Amino acid sequence: MHKYPVHLLKLIEVMRKLPGVGSKSAERFAFELIEWPEEQLKIMADVIKETKLKLKSCPLCGCLTGEAGCAFCTDARRKATLLCIVATPRDVFAIEATHEFSGVYHVLGKLLSPLEGIGPDDLNLKILIDRISANNVDEIVIAIDSTLEGDATALFLKTHLSPHCPNISRLAFGLPMGSSFDYVDGGTLARALTARLKF
Amino acid sequence: MHKYPVHLLKLIEVMRKLPGVGSKSAERFAFELIEWPEEQLKIMADVIKETKLKLKSCPLCGCLTGEAGCAFCTDARRKATLLCIVATPRDVFAIEATHEFSGVYHVLGKLLSPLEGIGPDDLNLKILIDRISANNVDEIVIAIDSTLEGDATALFLKTHLSPHCPNISRLAFGLPMGSSFDYVDGGTLARALTARLKF
Repeated sequence: MHKYPVHLLKLIEVMRKLPGVGSKSAERFAFELIEWPEEQLKIMADVIKETKLKLKSCPLCGCLTGEAGCAFCTDARRKATLLCIVATPRDVFAIEATHEFSGVYHVLGKLLSPLEGIGPDDLNLKILIDRISANNVDEIVIAIDSTLEGDATALFLKTHLSPHCPNISRLAFGLPMGSSFDYVDGGTLARALTARLKF
Repeated sequence: MHKYPVHLLKLIEVMRKLPGVGSKSAERFAFELIEWPEEQLKIMADVIKETKLKLKSCPLCGCLTGEAGCAFCTDARRKATLLCIVATPRDVFAIEATHEFSGVYHVLGKLLSPLEGIGPDDLNLKILIDRISANNVDEIVIAIDSTLEGDATALFLKTHLSPHCPNISRLAFGLPMGSSFDYVDGGTLARALTARLKF
């Protein structure tokens, strides 16, 4: 690719910054973009450029909000006393898609990770505890995945939030729906066995 | 995804327009872009927006050119009498990467395709023939892949260019390097057999 024009190299370089895009895919994207009409390129560029302007974090819960304000905090039909704690804004939408949760959310934004230098102070627990008190939260659901950082964070939250709300649960771990035994790892199977349900 | 803010939906929509990107990948790209700093988003947007301005087709050969002009037509060390005909600007770079070709290129931009309504008139043969006469081209290499459209176009070119340059060749077809017999299709094997080389 030594002969590529400078701008083509730039185009490939920015496309490579997208997650999971290697040099081959980035080239494919770049050559496709070259074929697009000017108008379509402009639309894409404008949408990307306006991202920070049009998508903000809700100052209260940390969820993604558009120009109309937070869809969760402003919804009076949601139970403010039921709080779900998640790691990223994206997790909120995954839980919403289940239609099983009617409370409000709190997005941590990060998980405890000594390797990345993220300690307890970075989790901003003060805001969370203030919110629990202000809303008289009587149930907390910790919806954080079961990685090393996730487990540590969940345990940390349980320890520090118990005095403010005794009713804390965590998402169940067990067999995924429709899964075959052959493809389930030992750890998951062990957890599913420990947490077996009366049938 | 019914709860996504409007701008997030727009971001997903533009990302889906990239080749081979489905809704899952587009969402992943969009959520990643949200995390990017403003400056990085601006760089990406600007690079995309400037594409048509900074990358043009060489009016002579149809190759991609940057602001410095066509890297092939302006290179006096290249043999103007040896012409390689390719389908897309991207093919030029693939051939360049082999370091085996020292002539100049002609990019067709499209292949004959009755299904897509692309007929002989769309190939702009007049310009190509004028160029062959002007440069006294004495060898033409047709480097078009072996699809239905590619074969039809190659045959069409051979028929119409023979009167202007008798020495026309096409890229060899045969076994790919390092390939295993098990994974080579019958058509390729048949062609490799017909075109067998003295060893």
